[in-house]
Amino acid sequence: MKKSENKIKSIEEIGKFGLISHIAENVKTGNKTTIKGIGDDSAIIDSGKNLTLVSTDLLLEGIHFNLIYTPLKHLGYKAVIRGISDIYAMNGTPGQVMIALGISSKFNLEQVEDFYEGISLACKKYHVDLVGGDITSSLTGMTIGVTSVGTVEKNKLVKRDGARANDLICVTGDFGASFMGLQLLERERKLFVREKVTQPDLAGFEYVIGKQLKPEFPVSTLTELRKEEITPTSMIDVTDGLASDLLQICRLSDTCCRIFYSKVPIDYETSRLAEEFNIDPMTPALNGGEDFELLFTIPLGQAGKIKMIESVKVIGHMTSSGSGNYIVGDDGSEVEIPAQGWK
Amino acid sequence: MKKSENKIKSIEEIGKFGLISHIAENVKTGNKTTIKGIGDDSAIIDSGKNLTLVSTDLLLEGIHFNLIYTPLKHLGYKAVIRGISDIYAMNGTPGQVMIALGISSKFNLEQVEDFYEGISLACKKYHVDLVGGDITSSLTGMTIGVTSVGTVEKNKLVKRDGARANDLICVTGDFGASFMGLQLLERERKLFVREKVTQPDLAGFEYVIGKQLKPEFPVSTLTELRKEEITPTSMIDVTDGLASDLLQICRLSDTCCRIFYSKVPIDYETSRLAEEFNIDPMTPALNGGEDFELLFTIPLGQAGKIKMIESVKVIGHMTSSGSGNYIVGDDGSEVEIPAQGWK
Repeated sequence: MKKSENKIKSIEEIGKFGLISHIAENVKTGNKTTIKGIGDDSAIIDSGKNLTLVSTDLLLEGIHFNLIYTPLKHLGYKAVIRGISDIYAMNGTPGQVMIALGISSKFNLEQVEDFYEGISLACKKYHVDLVGGDITSSLTGMTIGVTSVGTVEKNKLVKRDGARANDLICVTGDFGASFMGLQLLERERKLFVREKVTQPDLAGFEYVIGKQLKPEFPVSTLTELRKEEITPTSMIDVTDGLASDLLQICRLSDTCCRIFYSKVPIDYETSRLAEEFNIDPMTPALNGGEDFELLFTIPLGQAGKIKMIESVKVIGHMTSSGSGNYIVGDDGSEVEIPAQGWK
Repeated sequence: MKKSENKIKSIEEIGKFGLISHIAENVKTGNKTTIKGIGDDSAIIDSGKNLTLVSTDLLLEGIHFNLIYTPLKHLGYKAVIRGISDIYAMNGTPGQVMIALGISSKFNLEQVEDFYEGISLACKKYHVDLVGGDITSSLTGMTIGVTSVGTVEKNKLVKRDGARANDLICVTGDFGASFMGLQLLERERKLFVREKVTQPDLAGFEYVIGKQLKPEFPVSTLTELRKEEITPTSMIDVTDGLASDLLQICRLSDTCCRIFYSKVPIDYETSRLAEEFNIDPMTPALNGGEDFELLFTIPLGQAGKIKMIESVKVIGHMTSSGSGNYIVGDDGSEVEIPAQGWK
């Protein structure tokens, strides 16, 4: 591996994506079954007629979830959603998941059962099989490793690097809800700790709480895209945040983008809650993450067709490389979309 | 999921293997590409002509490794060995690995590079490609998720459940070395802390230290087995301990076993160190774990052929179900092999 020149660089300095790029630069692949390694939602492996997609994620206590307000059943459910969304994002069909679990010996059997019950529910709903994993004791909090496996026909594969200038930028659902749900849960937790409020006040915010604790994936949109014979030129699942994931596509496709402020779908609960917290709703929408929505691009020529699919909104278009990434206000003002660092 | 009757059972009570069995009982698979789910070294997925094998492991700081005496380069190397050994154990050929890494922001770039350099070295040596993963910040120690992918021809697959009574029990290498290497490192760490001894005394124990910090996998034995046209009836990689992994095969194959005390291969350094620590060398050999050796069974009729392979030792034979699992002493005495619990 080529060593970096400045050895004492901290991880904060280089940032998560810088770190991944740096590692990826040094990695050479050699096996003829390896179609694509680091850099997309899933690795792509040639298995003869079709392609096998494999992805892996790590969910850590205190970073990805807080056991204080996350029921274990929901956590299991969400772990599966997280895994399979990487397969869907390549236009694939997930078939199997594996869960590696690290837990302290303080957990009891009922808790472990609740976690696996959530996994089972998600597996059933999305027609995937739990095919293995590992359970190990942990000294350092709960840890979940999710590996998912799927397949896609060779000519149906959609990667992150296929967007072209003038392509339309499309999304499903809405953005920022999961993040605001988390803020709300966190606020109520603090009230519980400080002021002994025993009943959290979550009324009227069921949607954002649901997006945070028990997200679903918009599989039906993929089905509709197939029905309308639209194959996206690029696609990603929005888990790091709309801005970050859009910029990933731009970077890998060598394009820039313009999206429109008023077109980014934001749910009413998200807006109302953002107002309570005194923040612009666009902030969680762009940078919140864990939306589990699809972000994809289609050729301009398919603008007519995409209107037929109600669950899809066009939020902007790709521009040529070097022209900058902007969010355009209603008054025509342009604000640059900042790249995200280490979170 | 069928709930357990006694909800308050702790994880210690039910044990790791009890927990996995309990979960596996409740899991139904439904996809026609799922050939085998939970219960073997890897999941088996039908990908047309061949089978795709996928396995996943979780390595946690304080449980699977201690950063005080584990160089990050070795840790990366060992993570790959751990991943691919699950594929080899099914008589498959590993092609790809994915590494999901959780680290605190205190790590610097050089450390992360060292870790990935170890991964690269192992990938190169074993001809596998690093094809992806994830890097995430961790509040709770270093966490490594290893996913490995491989293939095997349908008629070459070896599972854990194929052993039959009278089959010979075969192993590669020797046992207990990795465990004793760990004990030695731990002793020297304590001396360092308590008595400010700055230079650890590891001379003469290079083999056991090497088995602990930078294990290799006996791939050449698999090649020789193929050359001699021996297809094992069952196989497992020894990572949980010889006794534990042998009993896994017995349980899944519905057989019992007899192994011979004097036949279990133990390296001279392991014996010498066990003596220093006042323990019977058979204890680490049977229960130590992380040996990264192969344990497999072959039909009695292939006894002549197996003698041709120098790297393989026959340590006993399978017996019929219900006859108990024993280790036989030189004097003919029989001691039951105890099942292992939660570690």
